[in-house]
Amino acid sequence: MRPFTNLIPFEDARRIVLENVRPIEDVEEVSLLGALGRVLAEDVVSSINVPPFARAAEDGYAVRAEDTYGAGQYAPKEFKLIGEINTGEYKEINVGKGECVKIATGAILPKGADAVVRVEDTDEENGIVRVYRPVHPGFDVAPEGEDIKKGDKVIEKGTFLNPPKIGALAAIGISKVKVYRRPRIAVLPSGNELVVPGEKIEKGKIYDVNTYTISSVIMENGGEPVIFPFVMDDKEDIEKKLREALNYDMVVFSGGSSVGDRDLLIDVVSKYAKVLFHGVQIKPGKPTWCARGDKLIFGMPGFPASCLNDSYQFLAPAVRKMARLPPKKEKIVKARMARRITSTLGRMQFFTVRLKDGYAYPAYKTSGAITSLADSDGYIIIPANSDLVEKDEEVEVHLWGD
Amino acid sequence: MRPFTNLIPFEDARRIVLENVRPIEDVEEVSLLGALGRVLAEDVVSSINVPPFARAAEDGYAVRAEDTYGAGQYAPKEFKLIGEINTGEYKEINVGKGECVKIATGAILPKGADAVVRVEDTDEENGIVRVYRPVHPGFDVAPEGEDIKKGDKVIEKGTFLNPPKIGALAAIGISKVKVYRRPRIAVLPSGNELVVPGEKIEKGKIYDVNTYTISSVIMENGGEPVIFPFVMDDKEDIEKKLREALNYDMVVFSGGSSVGDRDLLIDVVSKYAKVLFHGVQIKPGKPTWCARGDKLIFGMPGFPASCLNDSYQFLAPAVRKMARLPPKKEKIVKARMARRITSTLGRMQFFTVRLKDGYAYPAYKTSGAITSLADSDGYIIIPANSDLVEKDEEVEVHLWGD
Repeated sequence: MRPFTNLIPFEDARRIVLENVRPIEDVEEVSLLGALGRVLAEDVVSSINVPPFARAAEDGYAVRAEDTYGAGQYAPKEFKLIGEINTGEYKEINVGKGECVKIATGAILPKGADAVVRVEDTDEENGIVRVYRPVHPGFDVAPEGEDIKKGDKVIEKGTFLNPPKIGALAAIGISKVKVYRRPRIAVLPSGNELVVPGEKIEKGKIYDVNTYTISSVIMENGGEPVIFPFVMDDKEDIEKKLREALNYDMVVFSGGSSVGDRDLLIDVVSKYAKVLFHGVQIKPGKPTWCARGDKLIFGMPGFPASCLNDSYQFLAPAVRKMARLPPKKEKIVKARMARRITSTLGRMQFFTVRLKDGYAYPAYKTSGAITSLADSDGYIIIPANSDLVEKDEEVEVHLWGD
Repeated sequence: MRPFTNLIPFEDARRIVLENVRPIEDVEEVSLLGALGRVLAEDVVSSINVPPFARAAEDGYAVRAEDTYGAGQYAPKEFKLIGEINTGEYKEINVGKGECVKIATGAILPKGADAVVRVEDTDEENGIVRVYRPVHPGFDVAPEGEDIKKGDKVIEKGTFLNPPKIGALAAIGISKVKVYRRPRIAVLPSGNELVVPGEKIEKGKIYDVNTYTISSVIMENGGEPVIFPFVMDDKEDIEKKLREALNYDMVVFSGGSSVGDRDLLIDVVSKYAKVLFHGVQIKPGKPTWCARGDKLIFGMPGFPASCLNDSYQFLAPAVRKMARLPPKKEKIVKARMARRITSTLGRMQFFTVRLKDGYAYPAYKTSGAITSLADSDGYIIIPANSDLVEKDEEVEVHLWGD
């Protein structure tokens, strides 16, 4: 059994992971609403002007602006009403001198007209409209192409599609769009002690946690987990499943990275990939490894708190980069430590806490306890060169996402 | 045509909306991974201890701790190796005085033993194990129930299920879980000018944007949009579609709330619901209304920037409350205003900006332009009693989510 001889600092491990991620190149076409939260894989250029015509920005009367000059509250100008255009209608009307057309917000401005007089600045009687306020050319008219011009690059390749972007695509008439395919990530829990939740548990066995936490983190970060059956502590079985897993975009093992089993797993993986690191100066999550062959391969620790912490710290940014999503914007709140806590010198600790009334209460139990994370609101980071956080000290709590 | 006589302040409008939301009561059963991001609809109590047995926390030898007392680097204590227990195995072994059992991390602690000596503190030869370091009872043993105790309430009803919570459910063997059903929200775009994206556009028509932005916001906040065909500007059609829409949990109209059409829509809605407000002191998004009958009904403005802003400000928190999701944690960054901008006194403005090198550049065009939002990274809020933001003034930019 080999000890961990080369623990590397957290920042180095994260950098190495990210340097070794290859963003997805494959593209798929999805519906407009199916593109929400995805990443655009093509430049989208508008083939139309938006709006496609000059339109009224308010309800009123379309006029030639110059005919309104000099109008006042006690000196209205009179216009002959020659028609009406509703929103969505097209009519061949030409507005001449002294003429006006009743127009609804959003309706196409008739030829000849260059302004709209608001309905509240007018009155209408027997086909005559009196205008009590002058307007300048362009008043309450939204010009053709005001929003988007034909030929404009509306959204660039690589853009994350949020609701405003989906709206811009709709505005130019796009109903389908090319996005990058989601990374498909093989999840391989290993260990003879594991039982699938829902099944009967026997003496000496425990329920598999890591498959579900790893898969959740993958799903939260734009990937699709592909869950494998349990890998047995047996070279042949590891190799068979690894070869199949390498058909996917990334591979994540869990368990089999403690001193007992890791040699077996690492030995097999080493035939297909170069081990980039094995062991990180963090707590929980020390016995993690990462390898790169054709695909990036993670070896997550078997202990649930270690595995989930490593999933957040290494797997999540890797999946996001592969999916071409922007880095996660962390949510951090300040709090005061409710109790003095100690940490291990030489390892950066992700110490989980519960928040209450502005105080952070220790939630961390052990790396084997999923409740170390499940009963917490987030974590504080205690640097490797520090072993103490004092009571009442201000801390930054990194919140789990929601 | 009735003017807006009773514009209400933004905070009042938001409070009224939230007061009138009834959280979903219906429950559905989903798979464990299907529960990610959902809200638990039952208290989950553990029927087992986790771990279900005392187990080794490290690889080593299970011993009676007292037999190791006095061991030292030059004075090892000798133990008779009487067996081996691997992770996942169960063996009937009893560890007596001076005896030890080889044990793997996670394996069940044999009877009689109360501690584990780490492998690095031992050597083994011909069935004799020498221990070079004393251990106290419980050393490197994770006691039964250390993580979760049988009968513990593991997760409370109403909890948002993030990856750590999914992990805790897995740990106690849960494969299906009851969550609140997602709100189903009827989306009814109205206006004779609308064309579905992807179809051919005729003169005087524009592509429908609001259906896609409203639906995106609903999806981002835990709801399911149910998209209706366009509502025509016609009482009968409005009533027919409204009655059908009232079968869903919430109803969102868009368009038909400008001075021109809104009377028609509001008149019909008033037969089924009480109008809570009509017109809000904000820009963009002033001509919005909200009504409550059996269901909450929104009337969003037709202009795309107004509609989307109102969707973020009113619809999103309403959908989240209905879905029982925690309020969105806003992502806010500080920046300096790159240019002096002016606003309208008396209306709170959501002024969109682009971020670059720590500066916020104006992105806002008009309420009719979807690019007012699509070409921005977020918005600043200019209060109703202010009409100016100076160049270089520090501003808080609320980022669109991703």
